[in-house]
Amino acid sequence: MIIALDAMGGDHAPGPIVAGAVHAVAADPQLSVMLVGDQSQVEPLLERAAHRDRLHLFHCTQAVGMEESPVVALRKKPDNSISRCWQLLAQQKVEGIVSAGNTGAMVAGGLFLKRYLKNVRRPGIAAVMPTVKGPCVLIDVGANVSPKPEHLFQYGVMGSIFARHILQRPQPKIGLMNVGSEEAKGHDLAKETNALFNASTLRSQFVGNVEGRDIHRGDVDVVVCDGFVGNVVLKTSEGVFDFTMKMVFRELLASLDAERDKAKLALEALIHRYDYSAFGGAPLLGIDGVCIICHGSSGERAITNALAVAASYARAHLNELIVKELEASPPAASEE
Amino acid sequence: MIIALDAMGGDHAPGPIVAGAVHAVAADPQLSVMLVGDQSQVEPLLERAAHRDRLHLFHCTQAVGMEESPVVALRKKPDNSISRCWQLLAQQKVEGIVSAGNTGAMVAGGLFLKRYLKNVRRPGIAAVMPTVKGPCVLIDVGANVSPKPEHLFQYGVMGSIFARHILQRPQPKIGLMNVGSEEAKGHDLAKETNALFNASTLRSQFVGNVEGRDIHRGDVDVVVCDGFVGNVVLKTSEGVFDFTMKMVFRELLASLDAERDKAKLALEALIHRYDYSAFGGAPLLGIDGVCIICHGSSGERAITNALAVAASYARAHLNELIVKELEASPPAASEE
Repeated sequence: MIIALDAMGGDHAPGPIVAGAVHAVAADPQLSVMLVGDQSQVEPLLERAAHRDRLHLFHCTQAVGMEESPVVALRKKPDNSISRCWQLLAQQKVEGIVSAGNTGAMVAGGLFLKRYLKNVRRPGIAAVMPTVKGPCVLIDVGANVSPKPEHLFQYGVMGSIFARHILQRPQPKIGLMNVGSEEAKGHDLAKETNALFNASTLRSQFVGNVEGRDIHRGDVDVVVCDGFVGNVVLKTSEGVFDFTMKMVFRELLASLDAERDKAKLALEALIHRYDYSAFGGAPLLGIDGVCIICHGSSGERAITNALAVAASYARAHLNELIVKELEASPPAASEE
Repeated sequence: MIIALDAMGGDHAPGPIVAGAVHAVAADPQLSVMLVGDQSQVEPLLERAAHRDRLHLFHCTQAVGMEESPVVALRKKPDNSISRCWQLLAQQKVEGIVSAGNTGAMVAGGLFLKRYLKNVRRPGIAAVMPTVKGPCVLIDVGANVSPKPEHLFQYGVMGSIFARHILQRPQPKIGLMNVGSEEAKGHDLAKETNALFNASTLRSQFVGNVEGRDIHRGDVDVVVCDGFVGNVVLKTSEGVFDFTMKMVFRELLASLDAERDKAKLALEALIHRYDYSAFGGAPLLGIDGVCIICHGSSGERAITNALAVAASYARAHLNELIVKELEASPPAASEE
C-alpha cells in the first residue's frame, strides 16, 4: 500500500507534514508514503527517520500557495506538488493521495484529470462531523458549489457507503440539508433532490429534510448538501466551536479558584478531542483512487490520521461498492 | 407606540407569549401591545396583569401550526393570528408586529400583502449573532432562498443601516458569505454579488468574501448571504453551541469535585447569556412597518426583548433611512 503525500501543502509545510508521514509508517507496517515535494526541503527532514525504506521522495520544484487562485496556479506551475500527486494516482503508481494544501487546487487537479469512477457524475468531499451520538458524514463540503439534483442524490449514495463501511453504521440514515422539514421547503434544488430520493431505492434510508440544528444532534448519519452550503456549515461549525470554547475558558475559569487548573486541563482535552482540524481529512468521493483533503492548519497528528484513513479507505474497497451501488440505484435520467 | 403580538405563535403559546407582553408594557411606559389571538385563551392570562390599559386584545379564531405548510395554512385559515397581525400593520393600526409562530407563514403573510418599502426588491430577515467582538448581523436568514445578486446587495445596504443604528457601529464592515476569500470563489450568485458591491457606493465598507469561520470571530459587522445559507448557518450555530455546551457540561463537571457546583452555575449563566433563542427576534427588513420574527421556542424573556426591539426599531425610523440609502446607492440595473 503506497500513498502519495503532498509534502508542500499546508500552513506549516513541510515540517509537520513530513513528521506525520514518519509516524504513519511507524504505526502501519504495510504502509509506504511517497513524499511529493522539493527534495532540498524534504530530505533533511528524513535524516533521522526510522523505516526510511518505506518513505520515498518524488521531487518537484513548485508548490501552490494556500491563497493562490487554484486554476491560475495549476496552469502556471506545471511542476507543483498537487498536480504531481494526481499524476502519480492517474499512473497507478500510488493507491491514494493526501494533501493539506490549497483545497480548491486539490479538487481542481482531480477535475482536470477527470478520473471519476464509473457512473459518478461529480465527485464530492465528505467531511466527518462530531455529534452527540458519534460522528456523521456531511457531503459535499466544497467540491461542487453549483450541483444538480442528480449530483446530490449520488452524494447520498456515496455518503451512505462511507457511513456503513467507515463509520460502522449498518443502515445509515440520510437527511437532506434544508431550511425546514416539510417536503415543499427550500429552493428548487432542494425540492427536486428530495423528490429524487423519495423515488429511489434509497427511500427507506432517507429521512427527508434536516435543518442546521439537526446535524450535531446526530439523528442522521449522512447529511447531503451542495458544496457551497456544506463548506459554510463546516467552517461555521469550527467557528462556533472556537467561539464557545473561548467564552467557556474566559468565564468559567474566572469563576473558579482551587480547581481552576483541573478545569483548564479538562477543557484542553476536550478541545484536543473535538479539534475539527485533527479528524484526519475529508475524502473526495467519486474519484478512481483514494484522495484525502486535509485542513490547511493540519499538524503532524492530522497528517498521520489522514494517511491512516487513506490506507483503510483503500483497503475497504469502497470504490467498488460505489460503482456497484450507483449502477443499482440510478436516479431519474437527466441531461448533464 | 403600539405593537401587535401574535399571541398564538410559538411552541409554548399563548402562556409565555402573553406574559412577555405583560413585562414589556411594564418596562416601557410608552408601549402598548395588541395581543392577537383567541379571546377565550388570552383573556384569562391577563386577569391579574398590571397596565391593563396598554394591553389590548384583537380576537381571532384560527392559528397556523408550527409545522403546517405556510401557503396552505394561510389560504385555509383566513382568520389566523399571523394574517391578522399583517392586516393590522397594513391598516396602520399598529406600528409593528411580533410573532414566534411559523416563520414561513410570517414571511409569506408579508409577501402576500407586498408591503415592501419603496426601492426594496425583496425583504430579508436580519439575525443578530454573537461574536467574540460583540454582535454582528447576518442577513438574510430565510425570507428569500433563491435571491438575485441585486437582492443580496440590498441586504448589504439594509444590514449596514441596522448595524449602524441598532448595533452602534458608525462605519459597519460588510462581508459576503462565500467558500473562500478570493473574488473568483463560489457560485455565480456569489461572484456577481461581489462585483455589485465593488462597483457600488458601499465599496469602502465592503471587505469582500468571508468564510463560515469568520462570522463568530467578529471581523465584520454585516454578513450578507442568501436565505438558504443564512438559515442553515443560524441553525447550525445553535446546534454547535448546544453540542459544545453539552460536551463541556459532561466532561468538565465529571473532572471537578469541590467546585463542581460553582462551575455548573457559571456554565448555566453562559448558556443563558448566549441563548440564541433569547436575542429578541430577527427583524424582517424592507417591510413598510416593523416586523420581528422570533424563535419558535421563545419564552417570556425572548418576547419581552422582541417587543422592546420592535419599539426601538420603530423609534429609530430605520425605514426612512433604508428608503433614502437605497435611492442613493442603486445597484446596476437588471430585470426583476
